[in-house]
Amino acid sequence: MSVTLASLNDQIVTLQDRIKQLKVAKQDASQEVAAMKVLKEQQKVLEKEQEPGTSHSFNLKTPKGTLDHKPEAALLRRKIFNTLESIFLKHDASTIDTPVFELREILAGKYGEDSKLIYDLADQGGELCSLRYDLTVPFARYVAMNGLSSIRRYHIGKVYRRDQPVMTKGRMREFYQCDFDIAGACDPMVFDAEVLRVLCEALTALDIGDYTVKLNHRKILDGIFELAGVPADKTRIISSAVDKLDKLSWADVKKEMIVEKGLNEAVADKIGQYVGLKGSGPELLLKLKSDEKLMAIPIAKQGLDDMEILFRYLSVYEVLDKMSFDMSLARGLDYYTGIIYEAIHAASAPPSLNTVPVVPPPSSDLSFILPAESKHSKSTTTNEDGIDESIVGVGSIAAGGRYDNLVGMFSESTGKKGEQVPCVGVSVGVERVYSIMEMRRRKGEEKIRGKETEVFVLGLGGIELEKRMQFATMLWNAGIKTSFSPKVNPKATAQWKQVDDDSIPFVVILAPKELAAGSVRIKEQVGKDAAGDAKGEEVKIENILAYLKEKLNRP
Amino acid sequence: MSVTLASLNDQIVTLQDRIKQLKVAKQDASQEVAAMKVLKEQQKVLEKEQEPGTSHSFNLKTPKGTLDHKPEAALLRRKIFNTLESIFLKHDASTIDTPVFELREILAGKYGEDSKLIYDLADQGGELCSLRYDLTVPFARYVAMNGLSSIRRYHIGKVYRRDQPVMTKGRMREFYQCDFDIAGACDPMVFDAEVLRVLCEALTALDIGDYTVKLNHRKILDGIFELAGVPADKTRIISSAVDKLDKLSWADVKKEMIVEKGLNEAVADKIGQYVGLKGSGPELLLKLKSDEKLMAIPIAKQGLDDMEILFRYLSVYEVLDKMSFDMSLARGLDYYTGIIYEAIHAASAPPSLNTVPVVPPPSSDLSFILPAESKHSKSTTTNEDGIDESIVGVGSIAAGGRYDNLVGMFSESTGKKGEQVPCVGVSVGVERVYSIMEMRRRKGEEKIRGKETEVFVLGLGGIELEKRMQFATMLWNAGIKTSFSPKVNPKATAQWKQVDDDSIPFVVILAPKELAAGSVRIKEQVGKDAAGDAKGEEVKIENILAYLKEKLNRP
Repeated sequence: MSVTLASLNDQIVTLQDRIKQLKVAKQDASQEVAAMKVLKEQQKVLEKEQEPGTSHSFNLKTPKGTLDHKPEAALLRRKIFNTLESIFLKHDASTIDTPVFELREILAGKYGEDSKLIYDLADQGGELCSLRYDLTVPFARYVAMNGLSSIRRYHIGKVYRRDQPVMTKGRMREFYQCDFDIAGACDPMVFDAEVLRVLCEALTALDIGDYTVKLNHRKILDGIFELAGVPADKTRIISSAVDKLDKLSWADVKKEMIVEKGLNEAVADKIGQYVGLKGSGPELLLKLKSDEKLMAIPIAKQGLDDMEILFRYLSVYEVLDKMSFDMSLARGLDYYTGIIYEAIHAASAPPSLNTVPVVPPPSSDLSFILPAESKHSKSTTTNEDGIDESIVGVGSIAAGGRYDNLVGMFSESTGKKGEQVPCVGVSVGVERVYSIMEMRRRKGEEKIRGKETEVFVLGLGGIELEKRMQFATMLWNAGIKTSFSPKVNPKATAQWKQVDDDSIPFVVILAPKELAAGSVRIKEQVGKDAAGDAKGEEVKIENILAYLKEKLNRP
Repeated sequence: MSVTLASLNDQIVTLQDRIKQLKVAKQDASQEVAAMKVLKEQQKVLEKEQEPGTSHSFNLKTPKGTLDHKPEAALLRRKIFNTLESIFLKHDASTIDTPVFELREILAGKYGEDSKLIYDLADQGGELCSLRYDLTVPFARYVAMNGLSSIRRYHIGKVYRRDQPVMTKGRMREFYQCDFDIAGACDPMVFDAEVLRVLCEALTALDIGDYTVKLNHRKILDGIFELAGVPADKTRIISSAVDKLDKLSWADVKKEMIVEKGLNEAVADKIGQYVGLKGSGPELLLKLKSDEKLMAIPIAKQGLDDMEILFRYLSVYEVLDKMSFDMSLARGLDYYTGIIYEAIHAASAPPSLNTVPVVPPPSSDLSFILPAESKHSKSTTTNEDGIDESIVGVGSIAAGGRYDNLVGMFSESTGKKGEQVPCVGVSVGVERVYSIMEMRRRKGEEKIRGKETEVFVLGLGGIELEKRMQFATMLWNAGIKTSFSPKVNPKATAQWKQVDDDSIPFVVILAPKELAAGSVRIKEQVGKDAAGDAKGEEVKIENILAYLKEKLNRP
């Protein structure tokens, strides 16, 4: 545009002088230095452009690990979001919308070694900021900052992780998260049960096929570790090892516990007796409650008492049959303090998860072995949208749990002496839901549309543009989604092609003869028989709106 | 964290000195003054924190120039977006969703001197990226990258500008844009007219009061400059000067043209004869078309011919009466090549824009003077959400125009030899629309809600939690937005308080006596008479859904 290399060079010289002055005067020149960097980069770009013989060409792409959601994909995501929102709103939730970047110190110390994946903004003078890594930490910051004692909120937004992108696995650097959380005190398990009800309503409403919710309780796990004799300082790393049971065999996990984590083999074996247990909630609960040694551990008893209440509420909420009480579920994140869960898309889950949950016979020595390769190992070819069937096989489509201490990490700083606000929530894996829906639609007959246009106004026999505009206006005024050719004299074939390309279901055909008689023809496009048969039904002009509204199921 | 009171005080002293220097040197110190304000606020916070007895804390805030949209604000924005989306979808549009950051070279050279406001991501190895500055450049990149020859797209998303934030004016560093653009060839003015129709439909649907769309054509302006004798290399800067006529008087603009831009006074006067003209489209068009000298300039004639077609189409589209053909509208951005427009919220527009547009008597020497201070100069107190009445006075709520050369800047690099894809579009100022709606709601009686919950299930006389859960489940199953107390034994007053706090319109009251008789009471909450009168209507349990659906207008 207006920037020339000469003017740029002038600016650089001026700025250099100013920086010198500021430095001599011992004043802050950081803004100027940052501005200088920008100018020098522009200079490089311009110089490259102006090299003789090379027509300038830059990389026309999106940054690594990101992609454009094209119309079909964007519209499908919009539908997913609308479905989820309607469920959340049904459950008394509101939404908040936090900035895409946070002060760097807000995110610091929240993600352990994954902190290295955080995107930083450049230091251009002023505060140091980073792109959000998830929606949970900004939520906790919001609750603490506003001194809230309770809130139910959902938040759908993009998060950022400077991970090695694996497009074939759907692992991107920019992706949507969709979280529903309830913060605040309640009588035991009331909110926990509702979050699970919300999760089940959401997955049912998304209509992606059958699913199971694996469920466990951190306190029960901790009780088991205590019973088995895991040293207190090893609880978390052993818990992480258990969490790998959906990917590794027990033999491998046991080996990791002994060799890598330095656990005594007898202790590992004792853990193994429990973490293989899974089954329907009330049944497994009964079994565990009859285990006197386990019930003698106070924290385990607390967890089991919680589960008893939870199962009662889940039964009232009509979702108990969706649950699988599964002692191998441990969830990686440190901050969970109560129940934890993970929803598995049954139809596409790994084989081991497809089998009906069975409670092992009482007091049997558990010699179960999970399949060494439980994940689908399909080819990893990916299509143009970066969707790959193999990612669907991963199974997990939502996860969450109770985290009672996170808000306290922030409220400490407000002088409220670290007031805790207990929380429980769930995050729906929108990208996976999207992949499942997208694949189903591809397999089906239905053409995937990127727009919702309902009617095309088509002119035959030299009907003028303004006449078509006039009919379109009438339809728009009635709320009907309408398009027509932008040409003054469009050919019939070009118009029919537009109808076909956009899969528009209805065509209002204007032709001189019918118009003279005060009517048009309206044709419903079923299948692809477009251009050939252009008959349709004759409708009086004054009846067009009523006719179309009925066809379109409008009030 | 790293900010100490001492270092802050140092910075303040340094900045004070600098402001003094700048003022002595008669240079612009506004940025420094703004920075000072921020520092002083930080100072206050730190001082308060460090009062003896308070523990250490970090800054619990959002980054400068950003804010959290709280539930009420987020829900209202969501409604605005839904309204706009429904209009765009009615006009055959699809949406795309591009990454929030782009390769830095994509943004380079697109924003002139505003490039310094671009947020860069830190160089953490890999590509250099920046946060998007608007949605238009990513759109042009998308069109070129995918080799599209046509697309109608809308995009609602946040953009980022490292500007000096003025919360009181609603100028933020993170804010929403909402763009609708049509790319692709059409017969003259067909898409231009539709974009204006879409704009009018959108503003009408938002129901924010009356508005006017100021309309002009770059080619007419260029023709006037040619006629007046503006040197070709000064066209753009003179155009920028003209654009200030909504803020400055003609006398001031003229002075700028002569003194700063070095224009001959006679040339400026000639311009002045034209740029004050405004009025209804066809009327002013007739006047200009009868101006033989102007019509002799080919580019001016082209522009006027365009306008003639446009007004015809706008009349068919039933929006011509919303237009004000205004020769003072120039629009700052360089990339416009055809019609340009700006929608003014009439009820809150500056006084000069509230007056009915009048075409000056033919060939009168234009001695019009726009008010020197046309912007409202209300107090700039701001409320907690950063909304200030004075920003509403600014008037402009949407703007756009035709830009035929932007896509070509990108498609050059794809080896397609810079194929041009002509575009026309509009950007709705969501934040301003939001402020107007928010203020209207505050003035009105209606309580602003952050959730949509419709029914509260309230238990009296020791009704157990599971019974309330059971009724809630029935309502959820029927799609009714429902809440209840999460306590096992809630007090009646606490339950009524929740109803009141959340302004929930219906209460289903469970009490032992009625339940035993197979019924409940349903109370409609009108006004604030909640806790006092808890009667309501008695409804049989099997009729609850039908009763509520009728009350809620559900099918």
